[in-house]
Amino acid sequence: MTKRLAALAAAVAELGCEVALISGMVNMYYLTGTIQTGFLVLVPGQRPLLAVRKGLQRAEKEAAEAGVEIVALANPKDLPSMIAARGVAQVSRIGLELDRLPYQSALRLLTLFPSARPVDVGGALRRLRMLKDRFEVAAIRRTGEVWVKTMDAVLQSFEPGIDEYELTLRVESASRQAGHQGLVRTHALDFEIFLGHLLSGPHGAVPTRFDGPTGGPGVHPATAQGAGHRPIGPGDPVLADYACAQDGYIYDGTRTFVHGALGSRLQRAYDVCRTVHEMLQTKLRVGGTVAEVTTSAFDLAEAAGLEDHFMGYGVDRVRFLGHGVGLELDELPVLVAGSTQALEAGMVIAVEPKFVFPGEGAVGLETTYLVGEGPPEALVDYPDGVIALGGA
Amino acid sequence: MTKRLAALAAAVAELGCEVALISGMVNMYYLTGTIQTGFLVLVPGQRPLLAVRKGLQRAEKEAAEAGVEIVALANPKDLPSMIAARGVAQVSRIGLELDRLPYQSALRLLTLFPSARPVDVGGALRRLRMLKDRFEVAAIRRTGEVWVKTMDAVLQSFEPGIDEYELTLRVESASRQAGHQGLVRTHALDFEIFLGHLLSGPHGAVPTRFDGPTGGPGVHPATAQGAGHRPIGPGDPVLADYACAQDGYIYDGTRTFVHGALGSRLQRAYDVCRTVHEMLQTKLRVGGTVAEVTTSAFDLAEAAGLEDHFMGYGVDRVRFLGHGVGLELDELPVLVAGSTQALEAGMVIAVEPKFVFPGEGAVGLETTYLVGEGPPEALVDYPDGVIALGGA
Repeated sequence: MTKRLAALAAAVAELGCEVALISGMVNMYYLTGTIQTGFLVLVPGQRPLLAVRKGLQRAEKEAAEAGVEIVALANPKDLPSMIAARGVAQVSRIGLELDRLPYQSALRLLTLFPSARPVDVGGALRRLRMLKDRFEVAAIRRTGEVWVKTMDAVLQSFEPGIDEYELTLRVESASRQAGHQGLVRTHALDFEIFLGHLLSGPHGAVPTRFDGPTGGPGVHPATAQGAGHRPIGPGDPVLADYACAQDGYIYDGTRTFVHGALGSRLQRAYDVCRTVHEMLQTKLRVGGTVAEVTTSAFDLAEAAGLEDHFMGYGVDRVRFLGHGVGLELDELPVLVAGSTQALEAGMVIAVEPKFVFPGEGAVGLETTYLVGEGPPEALVDYPDGVIALGGA
Repeated sequence: MTKRLAALAAAVAELGCEVALISGMVNMYYLTGTIQTGFLVLVPGQRPLLAVRKGLQRAEKEAAEAGVEIVALANPKDLPSMIAARGVAQVSRIGLELDRLPYQSALRLLTLFPSARPVDVGGALRRLRMLKDRFEVAAIRRTGEVWVKTMDAVLQSFEPGIDEYELTLRVESASRQAGHQGLVRTHALDFEIFLGHLLSGPHGAVPTRFDGPTGGPGVHPATAQGAGHRPIGPGDPVLADYACAQDGYIYDGTRTFVHGALGSRLQRAYDVCRTVHEMLQTKLRVGGTVAEVTTSAFDLAEAAGLEDHFMGYGVDRVRFLGHGVGLELDELPVLVAGSTQALEAGMVIAVEPKFVFPGEGAVGLETTYLVGEGPPEALVDYPDGVIALGGA
C-alpha cells in the first residue's frame, strides 16, 4: 500500500496539485486497506493523512499497515487547516475524484478551497489500478475458485425444464455459499449486474440497457436485466455469465451450457469464441495492443460470416471485446478497436467473445486473464467447451 | 406517470429552466416506467421525449403508458437539436441531476450547451418521490410480504450455535426465493447495504462506516459490514435488519430475535423501542413534524437513561431516527431533529429506534409506515416483540 500511495503521490504532483482528497470507497480501500467514511488527504512529499468521519476504530485497525496517519474528522470544514498543517498554505489546484464525485458534492468541497481549481485524480487512480500487484492477482485467483464453484452449481442445480429464474436462485445461493460477497462493485454510474446473468434460449438475445452483448429480460421492468421466467428446454443455449466477488476482488467469466445439443449455427458461433481465445494466446501479451486484440476478434467473427451477431445484435451491439477487472467490474483497459493502449504486464482482463441470435439465444466464452510477457494466464482452470447439462 | 411528468415539468419551470435532462436510472424509471440508457428530455409545456442510446425496443414497450415520445439517440451531441426542435432555441438554464451526476459527466453535457448554467433538478425529483402515490404504496406493501418471509426465515433457519454468517446465507437465500430482487438501490454515493444485516451479540455493536446505528463487522475489510463469523449463543440479541426490494420498491424493517432470554438491560432498551413506536401512533401524522417525532424518540431514550446507547454508541452514533424508502433505501424525509420538514400524507418512512451496547450487541425495532391523517399505517403486519428462536 505504501507503494500504491507513493505512485498516487507522484501522479498528484505530476498533475500540478498541491493536494488530493480521495473519498471514494474503492479507491480508499485500494490505498489504505480500509473502507471508512472520510478523506484520504494526500500532499506529495508528506505522510498521507486519513481523516475519518465514521468508522475511526476500524480505520485504525485495518489501515495499520498503510503507513498513513489516522485522525478523526468532525467536519469537512476542518480539512483546509489539516492541509495547511502539512505545509500547504494555499491550494491552487486540488485533486478530486471528478469521475465519481457528484457535481454538487464537488462544488461543496471546493467552497472550502476558494482559490483552488479542481483537477481529476480519478483517472490517474483508474490507471494505477489497471496494473495489479501480486497481492491483487492472488486475490482475483482466489475469487476464481468461487466462480468455478458457481459454474459447477449450474451443472448440479439443473433439471430438465427448470425455470430459468429458479435455476438462477439456486446458482446464486451456491455462489454465496462458495464465498461470493453478495455484491459486485462497478465504476460507472447506474451500472448494475446483480451477481451476474443466467440466460437461456431467446432470453439470451433480449435487448437491454446493460452495457454488454447480453443482459436478459429480468422479471420486471424495474430490474430490467438477468433471468426471467421460462422453462429451459433441450437445445437451448444457457449462457452463465457470473461476476464473482470475494474480499473485494472480482473474477468475471462465462460458460455456455446445453441440455441436448446446440443447433449447428450456435455451435459454429461458439467455435469462433474458442478461436478468439486461441488468438489471445499470441496477441494478448506485452508488445501487443488493445486495438489489435480487439480488431483480430472482430475479424475472426467476420471471417466466419457472423459479424452481425458478434457482441450483440443490431442496434444493441457493443463495441468492446473485454474489460479490466479488479475491485470493480468495469476497470481499465477496455478492449475497443479505437484504443491506443499498449498491453502491459499486470493487466487483468476479462475477454468475452459472445454471439447473439434473436429468437434463439446467445453463446459465449469468457475468461479473466493476467497479461504478461508470454501467453496470457487464465486465472482459473476450467473446461472451455460447451458444457452438457444432464439431470433426471 | 403522466402526473409525475407534469409535476416535474412544473418544478423545472419553477427553477427557471428551459429544459431538464434526466439520465438517472431510478428517476427515469419513476417518470417513464422503463430503465434504459439515455435521456429524458423535458421541456415544460412540450411532450416529454425519451432519447434512448441502448435498449430502444425495451423502452418502446415498457414506457408505452407514460405518454412520452421515444426516439433513438445515436450520440448525446444530437440533444441540442432535439431540444431546439421543441422550440428552445437557446438554453440559458439547464436542469440536471447534479446530486448524482459525476462532476466530469456534468461538464461534458454542459459543453453541448455553452450558454447554459446548470441547475439541480435532482433535489426536486427527490421531493416529488418523497410522496408516494397509490401504485407505489401498493408496491411497497407487496415487498413487505417478502420482508415478512425473510423474518420468518430467520426463525426457520436458526439452529442453536449456528454461525452468524451461515444463518445470513440461509436467510438471504429464502429472501430471494420469496421475491427479493437481489440488489438494494441507494441514492448516496458509495452507500451499500447488501441485502441487509443479521448481527448477533457483540457484532451488533461493531463500529462501522455504515450510515446507521449498526453495521456489523463483515467477513473482510473490503466489504466491511454485515455478518461475520461467530456462533450464535443463548441470550445473544440477534438483530435482523433487512431491506427487501421487489419490482424496484423497498420495504425496510428490523426485528430482534433471541435464543433464550435477553439480559435485563437489553430487554429494557427493547421496551423503549416499542414505546417509540407507540409514540408514533399520535405524532407520525399530518400536522406533525419530522423534528418533533425525532426529538420525542431521543427524549424517550433519555428518560430511560439510555441516551448514550440510542442510535449507536460513542462517536459512531447517528443523529437520525428514520428515513424515507421507495425506489431507493435513503429517500426523503430523513428523520432528524434539525429538520423543518412537515409530515405529509403519502410519505413512506422506515422508523428504526435501536440501542447499541458495546460487547453485548444491539436491539431494535424498525417498521416502514405510510403517513396519513390518522395514525401511521404499518405496511406489514408482523409481531413487534422480541422473537424467540427455537431450534433442536
